Amino acid sequence: MTVRFSSRVDISAPNPIAAAEADARAHGVVLGKLNDSNPTRHGLAPAEVPGVYTAEPRGPRPARETLARYLSDTGDSPAGSAPVDPDSLYLLSSTSEAYSWLIKLLCDAGDAVLAPKPGYPLIESIARLECVDTIEYQLRFDGSWFIDTAAIEQLLYSEQGERIRALVLINPNNPSGSYVKPEERATLVRLCAERGIAIIADEVFYDYALEPFDGNARLAGETGVLTFALDGFSKMLAAPHAKVGWIRVSGPQSDVIEAQRRLDVIADDYLPMSDIIADRLPELLAAAPAQVARVRERVRGNLAALHGMLEGDEHGLVDVLRAEGGWNILLRVPSVIDENELVLRLIESHGLTGQPGYFFDMTSNGYLAVSLLPEPDEFRRNIRAVLDTVAAMLG
Amino acid sequence: MTVRFSSRVDISAPNPIAAAEADARAHGVVLGKLNDSNPTRHGLAPAEVPGVYTAEPRGPRPARETLARYLSDTGDSPAGSAPVDPDSLYLLSSTSEAYSWLIKLLCDAGDAVLAPKPGYPLIESIARLECVDTIEYQLRFDGSWFIDTAAIEQLLYSEQGERIRALVLINPNNPSGSYVKPEERATLVRLCAERGIAIIADEVFYDYALEPFDGNARLAGETGVLTFALDGFSKMLAAPHAKVGWIRVSGPQSDVIEAQRRLDVIADDYLPMSDIIADRLPELLAAAPAQVARVRERVRGNLAALHGMLEGDEHGLVDVLRAEGGWNILLRVPSVIDENELVLRLIESHGLTGQPGYFFDMTSNGYLAVSLLPEPDEFRRNIRAVLDTVAAMLG
Repeated sequence: MTVRFSSRVDISAPNPIAAAEADARAHGVVLGKLNDSNPTRHGLAPAEVPGVYTAEPRGPRPARETLARYLSDTGDSPAGSAPVDPDSLYLLSSTSEAYSWLIKLLCDAGDAVLAPKPGYPLIESIARLECVDTIEYQLRFDGSWFIDTAAIEQLLYSEQGERIRALVLINPNNPSGSYVKPEERATLVRLCAERGIAIIADEVFYDYALEPFDGNARLAGETGVLTFALDGFSKMLAAPHAKVGWIRVSGPQSDVIEAQRRLDVIADDYLPMSDIIADRLPELLAAAPAQVARVRERVRGNLAALHGMLEGDEHGLVDVLRAEGGWNILLRVPSVIDENELVLRLIESHGLTGQPGYFFDMTSNGYLAVSLLPEPDEFRRNIRAVLDTVAAMLG
Repeated sequence: MTVRFSSRVDISAPNPIAAAEADARAHGVVLGKLNDSNPTRHGLAPAEVPGVYTAEPRGPRPARETLARYLSDTGDSPAGSAPVDPDSLYLLSSTSEAYSWLIKLLCDAGDAVLAPKPGYPLIESIARLECVDTIEYQLRFDGSWFIDTAAIEQLLYSEQGERIRALVLINPNNPSGSYVKPEERATLVRLCAERGIAIIADEVFYDYALEPFDGNARLAGETGVLTFALDGFSKMLAAPHAKVGWIRVSGPQSDVIEAQRRLDVIADDYLPMSDIIADRLPELLAAAPAQVARVRERVRGNLAALHGMLEGDEHGLVDVLRAEGGWNILLRVPSVIDENELVLRLIESHGLTGQPGYFFDMTSNGYLAVSLLPEPDEFRRNIRAVLDTVAAMLG
């Protein structure tokens, strides 16, 4: 089933002038523009930001070429697959902006996207800003996390399935730290293709595997269904303040062509990528592998320290849910403890705040999300504070 | 009448943890965060983008302070008024993004904004992406442009007035080049205040007056009604590729407080301002006055050349509508000429494309928008091409 797009994007037939311009372009003719209001094309760019602004909807082509090479070389595409096409990439400021654009592309007001539970509330907030509902699907834990694909199938074929326009997959999910498994992926790609539903795959944490695993892969480049894979410097470069994100589009060719025709209109309205940043992309990408290695060492080291502390803890009241990837883990505390009470005590006694399970829509009580990023000493102090507080609450 | 906001923004009561965090902040206590996933706070920022990311919804405070000082010093606020408050400013990537945020803030799906005609189609496109309609109000020309405020009053008090949530004023408007006059402003501020409607004032061309005028002023800082004034480096620095814009909020205090509470939620979902750019803000602002002077000289010089060419033209078929400010003017050609035909001929004979009046919803035929930015020789060639083509079409 081909994907249905929203009616938000104006793709009405071009006027005779636009048609003539396209024809000239196709014949390699560069037309002058009587109404060109781009000062950088008339010698007026400031010395502080030199260069000629090309206003490309997908972002400056040299930057996209550099990024495409990087992604091809670092295994963004599965072994043996074609290199990443610069024209499949859209550069923007953040994955939040990417969510916003893709919801606009796919959903009219009152439509819905499927999003994981447990999960971060940001997606629901962004969808609501776009007048779109979020319908949650369950990740379940039986020693490892898995996606309840049967429930997703039911949702897609239910009465409200008609208004579901996208499936959001976080790979690995946050804060559960679970990757999308090969068999889950196969099922979900088949279901989405059947129902004409696009996949939005948020893979910002993909490189941060916490344990060895086999057979997982990025959804970026998936060809079985229209797929928008999101990534950026926030995690890959440990640089949330750089404000660089991107969308990679893939899938059946006819869906991709139609999606990009419309996404280009959205991108052309916003044109978010600054040349000040784009010019630095090669340098920033060059730093990414070392940054990934450095942060991975930190989070793996802290996770090992956590396991040591939990094993050595005399009370044995706290354990950790198995996490496969990402920067966060979920601690499980005795479910008799009220989550709000736990965090309020941590604030009071240790000057430490935190996010309990209900922030992420966990289905039961007794969870606390903990970041693996802090410097080792601070991390140990944080965990010590949790263990002591839990023991005191039950003591 | 207080302004009504959309239901897109989640401002539900804070949970007990958020309340305790706010309380700690109010007492000057800095809490640690168990779940802090900001790597720059844990010594992990890359050397290429140093610093600690503060993730402030309105943009980094030092950058807002620098901008506020600049705006205060360069007359963004009327003489004798208070200096610009850094907390009234939101930094973002573009005025397009600002429109998008403000429409989200003010309009539910199916609501409408009032926008000028003639005007640029971008606003209609952005509103449609937000599931919001654009209702046009007329600027009329009787030797000068003026706003048909009586028609706006009728619209606001009509049946569809209920769904109008904002009045977009472009000051000066593009491509008509007309400023909002003091008496128009007084009427519109009164009407909007009566009806609880916010003003979105796009003032990116404000500094580019083409002729002396008295009594005009920026809407930025208006206190009579909730006002969002937009500006940015695209025009002020002639640097559309820098991607720096801002919103300044003003108006009755209760409306401003409620607007900012909600706008902060939107801004916090996107956080678009890169520290790479924010760090350069002082340097870029320092370059702005010289850039404004340089571009103003160019557009005024070209306008004078245009007047000379039109006066000296043997055919006398083309004249120019009086423009007060901005970078564009509207040429008027004999209305027997089909606008599409004119531009197609220009493409064919001179390799020059352009935007005729219908692109901007002019109410009658026979207009062509022309940029005043090109280097003087190119500008003269452009005008010569138009004059020759018009003469040939009627010859």
